[in-house]
Amino acid sequence: MRAVTMYGPGDVRAERCDDAKILRPTDAVVRTVATCVCGSDLWPYRGADPVTEPVRMGHEYVGVVEEVGPDVAAIRPGQFVVGSFCIADNTCANCRNGWQSSCRQLDFMNACQAEYIRVPYADGMLVATDGHPDASLVPSLLAVSDVMGTGWYAAVAAEVRPGSTVVVVGDGAVGLCGVIAAKELGAERIIAMSRNETRQELALHFGATDIIAERGDDGVAGVQELTGGIGADSVLECVGTDESMEQAVRSARPGGNVGFVGVPHDVALASHELFFSQVGLRGGPAPVRRFLPDLIDRVLTGRIDPGKVFDLELPLEKAAEAYRAMYERRAVKVLLQP
Amino acid sequence: MRAVTMYGPGDVRAERCDDAKILRPTDAVVRTVATCVCGSDLWPYRGADPVTEPVRMGHEYVGVVEEVGPDVAAIRPGQFVVGSFCIADNTCANCRNGWQSSCRQLDFMNACQAEYIRVPYADGMLVATDGHPDASLVPSLLAVSDVMGTGWYAAVAAEVRPGSTVVVVGDGAVGLCGVIAAKELGAERIIAMSRNETRQELALHFGATDIIAERGDDGVAGVQELTGGIGADSVLECVGTDESMEQAVRSARPGGNVGFVGVPHDVALASHELFFSQVGLRGGPAPVRRFLPDLIDRVLTGRIDPGKVFDLELPLEKAAEAYRAMYERRAVKVLLQP
Repeated sequence: MRAVTMYGPGDVRAERCDDAKILRPTDAVVRTVATCVCGSDLWPYRGADPVTEPVRMGHEYVGVVEEVGPDVAAIRPGQFVVGSFCIADNTCANCRNGWQSSCRQLDFMNACQAEYIRVPYADGMLVATDGHPDASLVPSLLAVSDVMGTGWYAAVAAEVRPGSTVVVVGDGAVGLCGVIAAKELGAERIIAMSRNETRQELALHFGATDIIAERGDDGVAGVQELTGGIGADSVLECVGTDESMEQAVRSARPGGNVGFVGVPHDVALASHELFFSQVGLRGGPAPVRRFLPDLIDRVLTGRIDPGKVFDLELPLEKAAEAYRAMYERRAVKVLLQP
Repeated sequence: MRAVTMYGPGDVRAERCDDAKILRPTDAVVRTVATCVCGSDLWPYRGADPVTEPVRMGHEYVGVVEEVGPDVAAIRPGQFVVGSFCIADNTCANCRNGWQSSCRQLDFMNACQAEYIRVPYADGMLVATDGHPDASLVPSLLAVSDVMGTGWYAAVAAEVRPGSTVVVVGDGAVGLCGVIAAKELGAERIIAMSRNETRQELALHFGATDIIAERGDDGVAGVQELTGGIGADSVLECVGTDESMEQAVRSARPGGNVGFVGVPHDVALASHELFFSQVGLRGGPAPVRRFLPDLIDRVLTGRIDPGKVFDLELPLEKAAEAYRAMYERRAVKVLLQP
């Protein structure tokens, strides 16, 4: 089969390799119908995360079950399935609490930018749709497996409620999906921070009511001006830099909440400022599995269309170009066709 | 009148000074019935916070209204009142949201270790009881003005719910009141971290179900052992050191919450660890005013007896001895009789 490997910063190749196969009795092998490049894949691509050996890339996928191990009971070959980027058994105490991204078996999916993938704990990981969805819905279902699930978690962690005023920091695919989540959870005002015209338009399409192009002190001042000098009820931090985190905390009102889903890269949390801000903070890899049934339903019923974050589609063998387009910010997110 | 001044680390004096008086039309002057020394007063006493000039001490008080300014409408001379250590008008947007400790007029009470005190924004600050309470209830009402209100906030910020498993880090007056709060909010299991026998007994009296004397890795291991390796739903951080904060975050389960009410002193929050812990964090000076009516009611009806944290009572003129007793950990908290 064909799969994508990163050899070093800027060096991504789609190559032939051995087929994915069942290794443990709870595994499934899924033939991917669509996969994609994640913003987090760009950290090593940029050299911000080290690449010490060639690594198989990708953790987002939808597809059709090809084969299951002998201990898989709920998932059957032929089903169209959506899964999460976190490997979780969905049975441990943390999973039962809804924190599958802290499963006691936790690991992270990889090697999903490929024609076939191995999914551990298939019964816990995969959610099957009724029948095979229309091809037009595939991008949105693919988005659910990570960016939409992560944007949703950011909004839940930031405790967005009906009537909330929400700020979204970050105009990548996760931030844009955060706008969708805020709207679905009933936010009245959604302020998207973006200085990119295409992304601003997408944010407005998804439900943003205001755009702030400024950053830093000016960005905070903009939020304060729109919120009567108080700050927002909820802030979704969808970047993971020190600057974006500071922006997020300073944009929230006292007693408000920041949900942070950008993996922190050199983020220094100022404990004294956080204390006196009285802002609640919760972050982490999204427990997407908790949200999958609901989000799949919202896609299938046409309530949400997060697939719009894919503004470029390329065949899997053009993975190198896909990475380059995202790195150069020519594309928000690239869908790869196996 | 007599009042307490700190001249430098270890140097506290009760001296004669000018009487408190009305300065602004919204002020009240209150004759204190009881006041006390706070754990936070020990930071400058120890030299951990700088003392650059003589400073009038104390921010906890109950008393009888002596005089009110012309714009005070709800509070009348002769009433017995309880107030908070935060100065707040209780009318701004943050106050209306329940975050009086982030009032747009925020300042902190001082000079309350005195026979008379000036209370700004008297209508917003003070809650009057029906008639004058029995002398036996005065210590508990005094506790409500800070340590009980702060322990309560820690439990609310840590989202303690009926059935919760709770860890309380810190066995000072606030931590002990946190045990009371956790019990009142329905916690099923309350693990108090303390290596002091007297404080352990008080924690058990207040409702703790388990005591852990160890700290650091051993303390975390103890919590993990008691919680099936998952961690606690809620952790109340009532100290404010780097060690106690780390203890708190590591004691919470994924998706659990830490309420931190110890003013952070050189606390480094590890953003990467916090992210992957998926623990929610909220801290700050307690919005005691939000809780005052409820907590006063719980004291007057005999549901809670936080006054038990006062294990030493001294006349105001012996303030120096009061500070020393707390500094040497011979007393949990000292009540001063004006």
